[in-house]
Amino acid sequence: MIPHTTHTDRDSIQDWFRALQLDICEQLEAADGVGTFTEDAWERPGGGGGYARVLEGQRIEKGGVNFSAVHGTLPQNIRDALQVNAGDFLATGVSIVQHPHNPHVPIIHMNVRYFELSDGTYWFGGGIDLTPHYVRPADARWFHEQLKAVCDRYDEGYYPRFKQWADDYFYVRHRQETRGVGGIFFDRMHAEDKASIWQFVQEVGNAFGDIYTHFLATYSDLPYTATEQQWQRLRRGRYVEFNLVWDKGTKFGLDTDGRTESILMSLPPMASWVYDHRPVPGSAEADTLAWLRKGVDWVNLPTDATP
Amino acid sequence: MIPHTTHTDRDSIQDWFRALQLDICEQLEAADGVGTFTEDAWERPGGGGGYARVLEGQRIEKGGVNFSAVHGTLPQNIRDALQVNAGDFLATGVSIVQHPHNPHVPIIHMNVRYFELSDGTYWFGGGIDLTPHYVRPADARWFHEQLKAVCDRYDEGYYPRFKQWADDYFYVRHRQETRGVGGIFFDRMHAEDKASIWQFVQEVGNAFGDIYTHFLATYSDLPYTATEQQWQRLRRGRYVEFNLVWDKGTKFGLDTDGRTESILMSLPPMASWVYDHRPVPGSAEADTLAWLRKGVDWVNLPTDATP
Repeated sequence: MIPHTTHTDRDSIQDWFRALQLDICEQLEAADGVGTFTEDAWERPGGGGGYARVLEGQRIEKGGVNFSAVHGTLPQNIRDALQVNAGDFLATGVSIVQHPHNPHVPIIHMNVRYFELSDGTYWFGGGIDLTPHYVRPADARWFHEQLKAVCDRYDEGYYPRFKQWADDYFYVRHRQETRGVGGIFFDRMHAEDKASIWQFVQEVGNAFGDIYTHFLATYSDLPYTATEQQWQRLRRGRYVEFNLVWDKGTKFGLDTDGRTESILMSLPPMASWVYDHRPVPGSAEADTLAWLRKGVDWVNLPTDATP
Repeated sequence: MIPHTTHTDRDSIQDWFRALQLDICEQLEAADGVGTFTEDAWERPGGGGGYARVLEGQRIEKGGVNFSAVHGTLPQNIRDALQVNAGDFLATGVSIVQHPHNPHVPIIHMNVRYFELSDGTYWFGGGIDLTPHYVRPADARWFHEQLKAVCDRYDEGYYPRFKQWADDYFYVRHRQETRGVGGIFFDRMHAEDKASIWQFVQEVGNAFGDIYTHFLATYSDLPYTATEQQWQRLRRGRYVEFNLVWDKGTKFGLDTDGRTESILMSLPPMASWVYDHRPVPGSAEADTLAWLRKGVDWVNLPTDATP
């Protein structure tokens, strides 16, 4: 966790995101216990660049923590896609996906981002969502409680709105499944009080470390079977399907010739597809599938709830 | 190989495709030596259905051979996508993807299809393309020679046109790589002489068996290393990227609520992603990457050509 900045200018925002990236990497290295991040600096031909950081550790099989700050003249195709005016732009943020070794540890994704145009247009976006290979309702509830607490400190309307936004966004339509147990998602947030939104975004970024190190510590040493590992690979396959077919961010990046290796860092180290796989009725895998739906009110779920 | 039919009515076309499916399955079972296809019959709520056939064998790790014949009122979103008039439609065809165990055996894809509308509009489409994990120029040349021979029996303009079409279609734009060594691809083929096109399409369908059983027989028993297997999984990852990001057929199917399990049967049994993987310069893997580009004139390539 790093101290918030009260400055809302582009350089301060960008610098804070870079500091967040480094801080989260330190927390993940400590939680992994063995792996260390390697850093890959890259430059964008049109302006700016980023630092891609990857870890292959003992608890985290493949973890990516990206920072980027790209700027320059806004390309025509991005103008069209975002429906904004011409001008110079800055897009900066931190983007994270962690694929753990142990199938009892969930996959997690976090993103915080800022966009501004030379005409004064700006917005923030971001979110955190959790994709357990095995859904444990008490964990999903705890996860949502953390996010709700962050939201409620700024606006009691945030959590219900951003929770539903995540349900709708992280949806694998062709499977009629949510990607996981959701979380919060928000985009194009701007208001007269830029300072308040920026504080909220910083708090979302800072929430990530405690949340994910909690899951790593709790489940990394749990024994698992080959069957559970195969199930993990099938669920990772669904993760790939969501990211490549439905994720607007991925599509936007690939369509606008973004940096492929950074965009696709979210893809898992090993994934599997089996024709028409159906879990045994009543199994933990079948229960997980039954939980993967929109509209579950995780924070009010009884601890003994069944899907 | 099954005898051609000279009938060009919808029932005859549909029946011939179903017979082709069964014949190809027999050939693949014989080539595999152990695995047998299981058949999954499915129905489309709006009309028609299909038979999904899958094999998990000793040489073929995951092989899908699908037949479908769907009909009914043309849904609005399909009308828009295809830019055709309203009415009743029939879409029928055979679609194949084979993922072999041995990385020295290529992945192959084949599709033959027919579409007609109640207003008399119709067209054929299809193609065969090869995705070697390790490109061997002599094999790519042999493969293209087989396809050129089929094309030339109907129209000497077919091969150059359909070969380029395949280069353009099977292109992983965000990687700036072709999916493999291409092949032929054609769509919306219609003419006054429906009989001639239909004969050509049948010959394409019949060409598949000899071509792929040749590769299975030649390379299935070649020893391979763990490194080669990991390379295979990375190449399968690219296959997933193409199919989910760029393949118009897959996108069309998922967008129009097609049968997900049939559409995604093409996805591999196990695939891997490694951040910014780069093969050792001068290695067989690096040579393969260098071959994965548009415009290679495979049929005229010297046998000792280097990328």
